[in-house]
Amino acid sequence: MKIDYQKRLNTLWDRISEQNIDVVMITSPANVFYYTGFNSDPHERFMAFVMDLRNDRLMLYVPALDKEIAASESFVENIIPISDEEDPFTKLKNELGLNVRQIGLEMKEVSMFRQQKLEAVFPDVSYSDIQPAINHQRLRKSRNEIEYLQEAVDIIEKVLAEGIKKVIVGMTEAELTAELEFLMKKFGAAGPSFSTIVLSGEKAALPHGVPGDRIFQNGDFLLIDFGVITKNGYCSDITRTFIIGDATARQKEIYNIVLDSNLAGINAVKAGEPLKSFDIAARKVIDESGYGEYFNNRVGHGLGIEVHEEPSIHKNNDQVAESGLFFTIEPGIYIPDFGGVRIEDEVYINENGEVEVLTSFPKKLQLL
Amino acid sequence: MKIDYQKRLNTLWDRISEQNIDVVMITSPANVFYYTGFNSDPHERFMAFVMDLRNDRLMLYVPALDKEIAASESFVENIIPISDEEDPFTKLKNELGLNVRQIGLEMKEVSMFRQQKLEAVFPDVSYSDIQPAINHQRLRKSRNEIEYLQEAVDIIEKVLAEGIKKVIVGMTEAELTAELEFLMKKFGAAGPSFSTIVLSGEKAALPHGVPGDRIFQNGDFLLIDFGVITKNGYCSDITRTFIIGDATARQKEIYNIVLDSNLAGINAVKAGEPLKSFDIAARKVIDESGYGEYFNNRVGHGLGIEVHEEPSIHKNNDQVAESGLFFTIEPGIYIPDFGGVRIEDEVYINENGEVEVLTSFPKKLQLL
Repeated sequence: MKIDYQKRLNTLWDRISEQNIDVVMITSPANVFYYTGFNSDPHERFMAFVMDLRNDRLMLYVPALDKEIAASESFVENIIPISDEEDPFTKLKNELGLNVRQIGLEMKEVSMFRQQKLEAVFPDVSYSDIQPAINHQRLRKSRNEIEYLQEAVDIIEKVLAEGIKKVIVGMTEAELTAELEFLMKKFGAAGPSFSTIVLSGEKAALPHGVPGDRIFQNGDFLLIDFGVITKNGYCSDITRTFIIGDATARQKEIYNIVLDSNLAGINAVKAGEPLKSFDIAARKVIDESGYGEYFNNRVGHGLGIEVHEEPSIHKNNDQVAESGLFFTIEPGIYIPDFGGVRIEDEVYINENGEVEVLTSFPKKLQLL
Repeated sequence: MKIDYQKRLNTLWDRISEQNIDVVMITSPANVFYYTGFNSDPHERFMAFVMDLRNDRLMLYVPALDKEIAASESFVENIIPISDEEDPFTKLKNELGLNVRQIGLEMKEVSMFRQQKLEAVFPDVSYSDIQPAINHQRLRKSRNEIEYLQEAVDIIEKVLAEGIKKVIVGMTEAELTAELEFLMKKFGAAGPSFSTIVLSGEKAALPHGVPGDRIFQNGDFLLIDFGVITKNGYCSDITRTFIIGDATARQKEIYNIVLDSNLAGINAVKAGEPLKSFDIAARKVIDESGYGEYFNNRVGHGLGIEVHEEPSIHKNNDQVAESGLFFTIEPGIYIPDFGGVRIEDEVYINENGEVEVLTSFPKKLQLL
């Protein structure tokens, strides 16, 4: 499987052709990866995929120390290294000339500081936001990309299956986290796609809590929310909640409400419906059970190259679902000082407008 | 050890008092952590530490799902949750009123997109860049912070000592990476401070290469560049290069040049000298040995809450070194298709203007 970067670029050019753009400057590392194949975090250094549309030239500006790897991974031939003592904006000016009048860039990515730097070298410049066009393109996952995303799901589900075998009373959240992240690499992932969440007991009520030294006890909720990024650069994100030892009636009640909510959310997914309807369907189950106040976040988010991408699946999003969308469905009930349950799957709206669920790890309540 | 956040804020206020700022808005997660104690990555969601200087009010805007944890970790009492369907800028306006005329913000952090959103709710607003003041403050590490940073170094050196015992011919880079990251958690780290670099053989020539399926062979360079972030939120970053099995004369020659360069760089560190002199001293050793073209990056960078912070130690930086600076010294020789050596330590310019080296892992060439 090989990605056709030229085709991706052609799609982008078609989308932005009416904006009279002289130069496109893409600086988000994820977007640089999407359009060139070079996957790198430059930290505070300057990295940009630059397209001079006036003469069809492509340039990839990278930190000097990444020159070799950029040349081997990117489909762009003209790699321009920037050493630490050089000013990237002066280099841009030297390459592009002074009369750049319209730059297409990602307005959510380019800082006010860089904007000032651009204006210092291109005095007459104005800007077009090409982020909507890029997001619109990345929003629609191809079948190729779904295969990469399925690989990310398959790895994390193997990790989960192996990982929960290691759970015993007396272990800490941090210890299980270390085991899980070890298994990620063992099963071929590049690493976690975000900071692994392992929360036990009352801490499971913290949707973004951090694994710590809390020791697993009989009767604990055990919430595991994690994912991998594969060597191909695609992310997974799944949550399952377990009970260690024996479950109380209330724990079972809450679990089953969340499970029903998760299923209702997934069942609602369909091309042609507004995205909010998936959130509303899942939320309705929790609301009607009387736990509505304990579900205080959106039901899902897109993912792909990044673990959070468009679309956002929340109750006010009127955007209409269409083929190619890929996102999580992850309702939860979080009761402070008691605990919480979240069940998260990944779904794709396929070429026929139907839902495909990529996650397959069992969802019936499991006692460890 | 407890951090006095009010004191940190007072220092910031003193520095920016002449800028006529109505409202300070800090959105860099690292800076929010530095001033409030709340350490969180909101991804694309809005998080801001807001100070209304007109009436001395502090507010911490967080994603709704982080409300509990923010309240428990932050010293700020007024936590304002933002749910996914709310617009954070409308909430800001409702809280601050319309007549905000001067906002102090981090220009390298605030995107053009957010700037437009601010201007939509505060029609008369202009901006002061408070990033230089913040960086200036964070640049100078207190003795307290050095204790946290020493903890991060101690953990990674324990990991390295244990990790290299596992190296054998036939193992892959990815397998060793998994072992090292497992040990990080075992020894109490929150996780890696950046993507662990384990490169063998000719791949050691890639300063930012990615560990893969390359199998360790007799005679390989083995370059390990990694660090942890501790539960207290501080980072380490160290590199050691080994040879697996037997070393050739040329490998030894290159190793010892880099070691001499590393020592020359560290010996040059002193308050009152320009930062560039540390780079020049290390670079001179490599230049004079004839390998100058193979050392194409700066000799070091600051670190602390983030793994890359100010200062940048490069050959054109005239900034004068002073007490409190903390940074790496990491010269290297990278020969394409042959291999590379980097030796990286962490140094502190202490209260007396002298260098303290926090790293203590042996640097004499070690054959594994």
